[in-house]
Amino acid sequence: MVGSVGNGSMDLREKEKVEPLPREFDPEEIVPPKPPLETEGAGGEEGSGKSREIVLGRNVHTMCFAIKEPEADDEVTGEREAYMASVLARYRRSLIDRTKHHLGYPYNLDFDYGALGQLQHFSINNLGDPFIESNYGVHSRQFEVGVLDWFARLWELEKNEYWGYITNCGTEGNLHGILVGREVFPDGILYASGESHYSIFKAARMYRMECLKVDTLASGEIDCTHFKASLLQNMERPAIVNVNIGTTVKGAVDDLDLVIKTLEENGFKDRFYIHCDGALFGLMMPFVKRAPKVTFKKPIGSASVSGHKFVGCPMPCGVQITRLKHINVLSSNVEYLASRDATIMGSRNGHAPIFLWYTLNRKGYRGFQKEVQKCLRNAHYLKDRLKEAGISVMLNELSSTVVFERPEDEEFVRQWQLACEGNIAHVVVMPNVTIDKLDSFLNELLRHRSCWYQKGNISPPCIAADIGEENCCCALHKR
Amino acid sequence: MVGSVGNGSMDLREKEKVEPLPREFDPEEIVPPKPPLETEGAGGEEGSGKSREIVLGRNVHTMCFAIKEPEADDEVTGEREAYMASVLARYRRSLIDRTKHHLGYPYNLDFDYGALGQLQHFSINNLGDPFIESNYGVHSRQFEVGVLDWFARLWELEKNEYWGYITNCGTEGNLHGILVGREVFPDGILYASGESHYSIFKAARMYRMECLKVDTLASGEIDCTHFKASLLQNMERPAIVNVNIGTTVKGAVDDLDLVIKTLEENGFKDRFYIHCDGALFGLMMPFVKRAPKVTFKKPIGSASVSGHKFVGCPMPCGVQITRLKHINVLSSNVEYLASRDATIMGSRNGHAPIFLWYTLNRKGYRGFQKEVQKCLRNAHYLKDRLKEAGISVMLNELSSTVVFERPEDEEFVRQWQLACEGNIAHVVVMPNVTIDKLDSFLNELLRHRSCWYQKGNISPPCIAADIGEENCCCALHKR
Repeated sequence: MVGSVGNGSMDLREKEKVEPLPREFDPEEIVPPKPPLETEGAGGEEGSGKSREIVLGRNVHTMCFAIKEPEADDEVTGEREAYMASVLARYRRSLIDRTKHHLGYPYNLDFDYGALGQLQHFSINNLGDPFIESNYGVHSRQFEVGVLDWFARLWELEKNEYWGYITNCGTEGNLHGILVGREVFPDGILYASGESHYSIFKAARMYRMECLKVDTLASGEIDCTHFKASLLQNMERPAIVNVNIGTTVKGAVDDLDLVIKTLEENGFKDRFYIHCDGALFGLMMPFVKRAPKVTFKKPIGSASVSGHKFVGCPMPCGVQITRLKHINVLSSNVEYLASRDATIMGSRNGHAPIFLWYTLNRKGYRGFQKEVQKCLRNAHYLKDRLKEAGISVMLNELSSTVVFERPEDEEFVRQWQLACEGNIAHVVVMPNVTIDKLDSFLNELLRHRSCWYQKGNISPPCIAADIGEENCCCALHKR
Repeated sequence: MVGSVGNGSMDLREKEKVEPLPREFDPEEIVPPKPPLETEGAGGEEGSGKSREIVLGRNVHTMCFAIKEPEADDEVTGEREAYMASVLARYRRSLIDRTKHHLGYPYNLDFDYGALGQLQHFSINNLGDPFIESNYGVHSRQFEVGVLDWFARLWELEKNEYWGYITNCGTEGNLHGILVGREVFPDGILYASGESHYSIFKAARMYRMECLKVDTLASGEIDCTHFKASLLQNMERPAIVNVNIGTTVKGAVDDLDLVIKTLEENGFKDRFYIHCDGALFGLMMPFVKRAPKVTFKKPIGSASVSGHKFVGCPMPCGVQITRLKHINVLSSNVEYLASRDATIMGSRNGHAPIFLWYTLNRKGYRGFQKEVQKCLRNAHYLKDRLKEAGISVMLNELSSTVVFERPEDEEFVRQWQLACEGNIAHVVVMPNVTIDKLDSFLNELLRHRSCWYQKGNISPPCIAADIGEENCCCALHKR
């Protein structure tokens, strides 16, 4: 006979039945010697303003909230609950501060999903294919498919001709798109501009594909002259091409039409697969005048966008749309799938589709259009103010990513969470980045900058190679 | 000069500035002809009790909450808000029902993360490597590293010798483990039992690895005699082996020690890499007497576990732990990474580590031990009751997965969300599965079953091939 099994019941009879832990197993050893509320500092560089060394393959415990085995009397004293509540309260305060001072990553931090708070009690999992029911009932496929339909419509692919799913992030969209391309053309060579997101090159390595890096123009766009030359050297193998709808660093938009023209005019007609990585701009571009249109009416194979970027979402997510016929190529190989699942991940976060559904429904096309226009206006404002102050700066026409000289002080960079590469930094103007926020950033930058370069022993870096001479304000290029 | 940029301000001046939508773009076309609150039914089979046809590569819109472009006056009338609130309220009710009637998937649905509700307002993203700081400040690495330390300790790998991260699901752990194995032995052959999770075979195809399926015993464990024979035919190439710590269908635990012995005694010493797929049992096994121990003191390369299974979490997640030296193999190839990131996904959900941290801290080893014991007790209870009722059933010694004859009625299967394969179904007894719940399941099953087999024109299936003759109660094997 089995005893009481009420959840969370803690009566003594049940307690007595618990087997002792195996002898070799000392739960206390998990606890590091330091007090748990303190975060462990590995090295004193934190906050010192010095640039941090990046070491691959080292597990540096800069900060860590250690997990401590509960004491036997924790339930009585309530100390455990109090400890955890204090950690969380502190953490929440730091999140508020970090959210306020954020400029460098393309994440819209302005969202209110209060109405969805009640759903956090459920383990929502959209197992496998969004269009194939699973027996697991706690899912959100009905929201997911609504969101997918919306994107398929945005990119002009008929409802019965598309396949897609809500991914865990932009990278998953890219991994999926490149994989579909490889399945369509197993012998294809992957072409991607050097400014493509690193997940594209990761995919090539994972999938054991040959990958050719294509040069870029100063704007960050793919250089189709060099692309053509690369194609001509590999006439015998099909082309799988990553087209950037907004590069990570400069927000440059590859010229999709020119890429297609280059392929078709050089003997690759019907022998290419294009994946459009629209991580950020995939959702902004439709609302920008003069932007080359991403549409499945053109011969593209797949398009992806991130959900936590322009839309805004508590956790990373994304949308991947491809042609149904390509999924059939994947799916026909049952040995590959060993299942009914053409996604990368299998188990998938069922909350993300609801967040996206909620925002798309509330804002609609017109809401996004308004926000895109606000972002572009504010990005121009930032660029103009930086230029007035004599700081090297570039803003691509279709973009809200403002590229400028990397601030001298790493602490300043970290405070504003700027993304940097070499001598350049960028601010991505998202809907939560207001003129007020830009003004306080600008004021602080100018104040600090006058100190950095005051003595004249160091001067602002030349970034002409990154943003073009005409945008560079270094001693050499200043006019 | 730029106008007001307050978030969400909707004054008319700003409204007037909004560009009209491009002409080719009709936002209303997104709306399907049917009323949005109704879910679209694609075919009348839903709820009819007939088995559904599974079609790969078809986007069947069984259910879909369509996204509707807001009307211009929605903000005034409040109709949009009311519509969305009603969809969500209905959805919540269905989640409560579905959560109550769930038995087939290894998800612990019993959790209370109310204390973490406040964090849903933040876009928490643990970009890239958990041990390398990113400039993005809204992260939860300090919790993530705490959780990783706990698991490294559980699996006995020194703090300075492990690397790992919190994944999006069990599949990501497997994808990562197999990838690390391939990087360590680029020419290696992947060996996995036929009962391995399908993500293992997906990985082989993705990574262009040769993969050999190894037979299983009736219990579902890997058959090491067949494994040895396969190894002997491929002496010249290293072995990458997936070891199941609890198979998906039967909850079988591969004999890790025997796998290692087979490798070492047949000329593969120092020429193999073992990934332990501990999706569910990785966290239960340490608390089960007589269970072969998963530990890095044995020559294994990586181990993974799901976070949403035994721990319980609102969204899928997992933990992947590997040896730091293997990550160095990956990382030394900078061309591969093109970044500081040895994860699969790049952007990573920062909420999941906090959920895990919260539960590990509250329950601790002893709490898990107690829950594991409860699950095993309740699984035995279910098995005994089924056996008493003359139903074919099997329960592996180390498992809480009860395998039995597949119920005749698909509607019953769906109601209780049983996972099925061929003629067998299973219930995975998780901490939220109480005796009360099992009793109502059993009562309903017996009541229905007497109808299914009443007339005698159909009889219960023979599942001796799946669970062994000694466990089968079909007409032929009944004693």
